[in-house]
Amino acid sequence: MKHTKVKALLSGSKVNTEVNAKGWVRTFRNNQFIALNDGSTIHNIQCVVDFENTPEETLKRITTGAAISVIGNLVESQGAGQKFEIQVTKLEILGDSDAEKFPMQPKKHSLEFLRENAHLRVRTNAFGAIMRVRSVLAHAVHTYFQEKGFVYVNTPVITGADAEGAGEMFQVTSLPLDNPPRTEDGNIDYKKDFFGKHTNLTVSGQLEGETFAMALGQIYTFGPTFRAENSNTSRHLAEFWMIEPEVAFNDLDDNMDLAEDFIQYIIKYTIDKCQDDLKFLEGRLLEEEKSKPQADRSEMALLEKLNFVLENNFKRVSYTEAIDILRDSTPNKKKKFQYIINEWGADLQSEHERYLVEKHFKCPVILFDYPANIKAFYMRLNEDGKTVRAMDILFPGIGEIVGGSQREERYDVLVEKMKALGIDEEELWWYLDTRRFGSAVHSGFGLGFERLVLFVTGMTNIRDVIPFPRTPQNAEF
Amino acid sequence: MKHTKVKALLSGSKVNTEVNAKGWVRTFRNNQFIALNDGSTIHNIQCVVDFENTPEETLKRITTGAAISVIGNLVESQGAGQKFEIQVTKLEILGDSDAEKFPMQPKKHSLEFLRENAHLRVRTNAFGAIMRVRSVLAHAVHTYFQEKGFVYVNTPVITGADAEGAGEMFQVTSLPLDNPPRTEDGNIDYKKDFFGKHTNLTVSGQLEGETFAMALGQIYTFGPTFRAENSNTSRHLAEFWMIEPEVAFNDLDDNMDLAEDFIQYIIKYTIDKCQDDLKFLEGRLLEEEKSKPQADRSEMALLEKLNFVLENNFKRVSYTEAIDILRDSTPNKKKKFQYIINEWGADLQSEHERYLVEKHFKCPVILFDYPANIKAFYMRLNEDGKTVRAMDILFPGIGEIVGGSQREERYDVLVEKMKALGIDEEELWWYLDTRRFGSAVHSGFGLGFERLVLFVTGMTNIRDVIPFPRTPQNAEF
Repeated sequence: MKHTKVKALLSGSKVNTEVNAKGWVRTFRNNQFIALNDGSTIHNIQCVVDFENTPEETLKRITTGAAISVIGNLVESQGAGQKFEIQVTKLEILGDSDAEKFPMQPKKHSLEFLRENAHLRVRTNAFGAIMRVRSVLAHAVHTYFQEKGFVYVNTPVITGADAEGAGEMFQVTSLPLDNPPRTEDGNIDYKKDFFGKHTNLTVSGQLEGETFAMALGQIYTFGPTFRAENSNTSRHLAEFWMIEPEVAFNDLDDNMDLAEDFIQYIIKYTIDKCQDDLKFLEGRLLEEEKSKPQADRSEMALLEKLNFVLENNFKRVSYTEAIDILRDSTPNKKKKFQYIINEWGADLQSEHERYLVEKHFKCPVILFDYPANIKAFYMRLNEDGKTVRAMDILFPGIGEIVGGSQREERYDVLVEKMKALGIDEEELWWYLDTRRFGSAVHSGFGLGFERLVLFVTGMTNIRDVIPFPRTPQNAEF
Repeated sequence: MKHTKVKALLSGSKVNTEVNAKGWVRTFRNNQFIALNDGSTIHNIQCVVDFENTPEETLKRITTGAAISVIGNLVESQGAGQKFEIQVTKLEILGDSDAEKFPMQPKKHSLEFLRENAHLRVRTNAFGAIMRVRSVLAHAVHTYFQEKGFVYVNTPVITGADAEGAGEMFQVTSLPLDNPPRTEDGNIDYKKDFFGKHTNLTVSGQLEGETFAMALGQIYTFGPTFRAENSNTSRHLAEFWMIEPEVAFNDLDDNMDLAEDFIQYIIKYTIDKCQDDLKFLEGRLLEEEKSKPQADRSEMALLEKLNFVLENNFKRVSYTEAIDILRDSTPNKKKKFQYIINEWGADLQSEHERYLVEKHFKCPVILFDYPANIKAFYMRLNEDGKTVRAMDILFPGIGEIVGGSQREERYDVLVEKMKALGIDEEELWWYLDTRRFGSAVHSGFGLGFERLVLFVTGMTNIRDVIPFPRTPQNAEF
């Protein structure tokens, strides 16, 4: 007999028939009531055991974490808490779980303990929900772009370029570190390395993505990216997934429209598909925040916050306006900011971004037209000669979730900028070719996928929204 | 005025209205007819220039590769070859393309030349088509699994484990190769490396995926994987994308059913969505094969071959049966095989797989129940004690496209196997936990995405179906 998923059983379509369920025991009460979960939904199916006719030996083995198979009638439940239950006629223990040793006991574990058991934490309600939501969000990303005719492009993870300057890079090598081959003058002989040159893990697929956008029109990447930065914070990972759309003929306004429409679409898609998981995560967040002082608690419950993002336009504010707002702000005047804003040109810190989003505007904010000298070389210089067509999208509680720009499409201006910054033209010959042959206005952005998952799940540490986090001093599993 | 995609223009819905198109010039004939492509479709839109009223200077700049914007009436075309065309009233050169220098001239280029210009080759018909088909195939993968309730899991790219043994690994490090820190006894001090230990690029997400399948029931990965093997062949890449589903409670038969259903679904999905591109690629293949001797040509045209895979069950053959067939085969008897098959236990080479698929069965073949000692440690030992529940799917022209197995769910048997092979139990403590706590029958497989793209596009070199191939001595772009 083929087994049926718990999600399907709970829909009731098989009521009053004999069914088979397979899954893992969450709890076993009164030698009679098994809460069985198979990961298809956050909900368990109650399996009622005829304990008088079940051998004592078997009952003892129905422990938290054990894998079992039950056969029985699916009936409407008389008890509170569930609509349907299985009246078990046959029970088989597939895999035992020693109650003394299984780490995921049915009690509250600290998030830190769960991180140390990342291979088992997904057997808890919270992490099951987070990982299902993450998966649906990822599919929302693909569905949005594919429906709009974007082409998914897998830009390379291993790269010979290290010019983009988005951050410190990891080196990839097949040379023996203990005794690498050297050239006559004593340097490492990268000609003998696998790729015949020094290679790194990519920090962004943007530059390669641009070459494809200038042929296919609209493309997006969605893949892993890397930063070898010693940032031990709740917002940084050494390995994270990034989404990077790039669109020919889009200017910065089109780019903002795209980013806003995209984010609203994928959040709506996920709300529609993940009601049960999001309700659970909303409850989890409320519970967690009870221990916080009132001022630190969220103003809105999780689903309310998500709907707020859907229903309200993101506030578009130029860097110059933002500086004015910050300069006149109470925390700036009272010197409560760690970095006091005095002059136009200052780089915005996390405290400033949070003030703008969480205190001043109280909604997602798109900052644009930043000073050229605090932004990357490929951004389109404005006619004022001092700002570039950059944009950052800031989210409450998360900070920067999107960074993007209109790209400098003028060959001469781009080359001059690269020269000024000491970026090797030879190395980026292929990138410059996009401006040599059929150049055009184009724009794109990068969205850090885990930051979006943080926002949608209401979690606060980025290590809790990726299966196996990679951070300084940690590459377990 | 907002521009309209060429694909939408060619659908005719805007006929007899003023439209704006933006794209790149493919050809310009008689100072009058521009073939304009924007990557939204393989087809160009013909733009008819009023050359008598267009400045000579502008006409000269309408060269292959130039980016232009045209405004004009969309009308039914009188000429052969297209249904609709734009009668241009306004033309703007967005970005020039020097006809002397632009490498992608409208003529046949060698695939090797195009690989050296991977940033521009996507501006050709063939590579535009390949990359669109690849993108749709990728979306088919996600759609299939998501509709079936599988959870997409991003297993880590950087891994501290190197036990799986699927192949040579690349090292990832932030240590300076020139002068790495050393311990007192002179070894490299990996405690000082970014992750505090020796790390590599993953060869497979399977082991991590299994831990998630044993909680969420059905999961899949789809991400980049790596092999530091010096294989300079048309079937190997150092960086490629792999799809790895893993399902709790599935045995090997379920696993074969899943793989077959999955492959048929995604091919059907892609045929439905990519008619124009596949027809073009079918023509390209026919053209290419004209230069081959009759015996080396495909027996079926591309779409016929794809439909054949949809309509016919994959032939399921045990390793033992396959050995019997091969031993009795003409090339074996006549010693035409490089490796003569004498005895049960021999590892099958590419020549044997091709014989089975292309000569004997003439359809996709699933080989199963291989000798234990030529397969990985985690595969389920059969009751015969000498074979394991492994399966490989072989495709005509491609060879192995899927490798999978039912996993060894018995803790004791697994540990014994690891000991025999010298695999460190301590390192895989988390993997063994899946067998300690609630173990159950489960199965999965890995499908090399680029091999599937090869099959569907009819291309023959794997470097031509990934945007920027990574191979020995090559990490350009």
